[in-house]
Amino acid sequence: MKVRVLAASLFFLGLPLAWAASDEPIQPIVPPKQINLGMVELGKKLYFDPRLSKSGFISCNSCHNLSMGGTDNIPTSIGDHWQQGPINAPTVLNSSLNLAQFWDGRAADLKAQAGGPIANPGEMAFTHTLALGVLDSIPAYKREFKQVFGKDKIDIDQVTLAIAEFEKTLVTPNSRFDQWLLGKKDALTADEMAGYKLFKESGCVACHNGPAVGGNSFQKMGVVEPYKANSPAEGRSAVTGKDSDRFNFKVPTLRNVEMTYPYFHDGAANTLGEAVDTMGRLQLGKKFTEAENAKVVAFLKTLTGDQPSFTLPILPPSTDMTQRPQPFAKK
Amino acid sequence: MKVRVLAASLFFLGLPLAWAASDEPIQPIVPPKQINLGMVELGKKLYFDPRLSKSGFISCNSCHNLSMGGTDNIPTSIGDHWQQGPINAPTVLNSSLNLAQFWDGRAADLKAQAGGPIANPGEMAFTHTLALGVLDSIPAYKREFKQVFGKDKIDIDQVTLAIAEFEKTLVTPNSRFDQWLLGKKDALTADEMAGYKLFKESGCVACHNGPAVGGNSFQKMGVVEPYKANSPAEGRSAVTGKDSDRFNFKVPTLRNVEMTYPYFHDGAANTLGEAVDTMGRLQLGKKFTEAENAKVVAFLKTLTGDQPSFTLPILPPSTDMTQRPQPFAKK
Repeated sequence: MKVRVLAASLFFLGLPLAWAASDEPIQPIVPPKQINLGMVELGKKLYFDPRLSKSGFISCNSCHNLSMGGTDNIPTSIGDHWQQGPINAPTVLNSSLNLAQFWDGRAADLKAQAGGPIANPGEMAFTHTLALGVLDSIPAYKREFKQVFGKDKIDIDQVTLAIAEFEKTLVTPNSRFDQWLLGKKDALTADEMAGYKLFKESGCVACHNGPAVGGNSFQKMGVVEPYKANSPAEGRSAVTGKDSDRFNFKVPTLRNVEMTYPYFHDGAANTLGEAVDTMGRLQLGKKFTEAENAKVVAFLKTLTGDQPSFTLPILPPSTDMTQRPQPFAKK
Repeated sequence: MKVRVLAASLFFLGLPLAWAASDEPIQPIVPPKQINLGMVELGKKLYFDPRLSKSGFISCNSCHNLSMGGTDNIPTSIGDHWQQGPINAPTVLNSSLNLAQFWDGRAADLKAQAGGPIANPGEMAFTHTLALGVLDSIPAYKREFKQVFGKDKIDIDQVTLAIAEFEKTLVTPNSRFDQWLLGKKDALTADEMAGYKLFKESGCVACHNGPAVGGNSFQKMGVVEPYKANSPAEGRSAVTGKDSDRFNFKVPTLRNVEMTYPYFHDGAANTLGEAVDTMGRLQLGKKFTEAENAKVVAFLKTLTGDQPSFTLPILPPSTDMTQRPQPFAKK
């Protein structure tokens, strides 16, 4: 209590209050402090390189598009030969803050995740061996891997480590909400503040908390009312084998949520208003009024941070030795 | 002759020879001098925005990928629902130097070209009206169009003008060959110089000349020997209706040709060596020896210039009013 009185006094004195909001359930995004820059530059190239797919057309950035909040903004992703994916592509932004990767948490970390889509027949439809063959045939890649990892041979661990290192840089600090958390008291409008109050008092923060405003627990989709999903995905039970984990999904981050539509693991909610309404009813047994809903949405839009800013990577060209992609080969 | 003697004297004196190569059939790439920067920034967003396609998945950059020499590096492009395109995607790099756009020259300029793929059912499969509806539903786009064009209403001319203005910036100066043209006499190796000599003396320069090393005429594919194409494309006759224009195609630019594989309008040649061999036989009646071929290829690789360098654009998010893409709707 003494701290708060002091904070209030400092506030009236116009002094910065970097610690004033420290008892909030959401913390500011902090950029990573230990980053291997050479690995990041290599990982960025790999992230944008469609030659890690069978078709030569799909890269990590196809479905986790860094121009669009690290998502593809469609309900479920498009894979090799235009296959329809089973689940909504989660944003790659701030994904280093997740307790695990994928909606069902089947990958422990970003490195473990990165190899998945390359070899998934419904996504990039390649194999790790073929992807390594492509990289190995390109001298500029060979040199860069050698420079970064100090080894003569490229292996899949290096590929996924580099992609993961790049992804660690994809954080979005400096949202208006973070500015408010860090003491800029006029960073939010009255409606946005009211929305945040509703977000806290209604119980949303029970799951959507921490720096990522989510991403740190698995929770059941449909606590009070069952969720009628458009998708057959069963969530965490596919990993643990436990029936009690059915429809448990990783709580998605709400950072940059204005950019990561459509929402839910099946991408069924097109708008933030719809998502807030459904979450209120199914998870909290609460029907937000239209005015309340609008305020919560206004608050959520303050979570959009500085988007990753970097130069589009230029990829080293294939050589005569590089296996050509197979965009139209029979599956 | 006096000029050459003077040039030679200056060379021995170690003075710069900016004009020494002025009698060469290839001229250096010169960056454009009159560019509307606001229009470029808007056009860059549009170029990367897959919401100009029906699926929400395909942007200009999908097939003219600026990480990969402005091409997709596959024989023919992938369109909506993974349709196989009829022709190889030409590079967008230096395309402002072309006498016309598309392989058959059916678009007079970049602006006329830009609207084509958006509405082509085999490519982005959208309509101009629907694309304008998407842009019109996004306040950040509306503001930017208003700022750039000063009008209240977005129309397709503004969209294609902005994309074309961005594309005008996609030039690649400062290749090693251009450095040589501009007087840096040690910019090329002996083999590369020998390759250039072969390129000139064998007649390649008859069509591949000017700043773009091509792009400034239509020529018949298969002059001495007929070309057995993998593609039904008939070239210029589809535009002029003249039978004499059958298999006449725009001569492609050879700038950055190391990055723009596979080659020819049907993408049938995977390597530069193969392309040089085929061109020699079919266009010139000349069979290059293996050593000659390697030298011409070495020369061609000196045409890779500085690739466009810019920050990946961040796209303004859709709103509740934005029509959602239809990635999996029946065609």
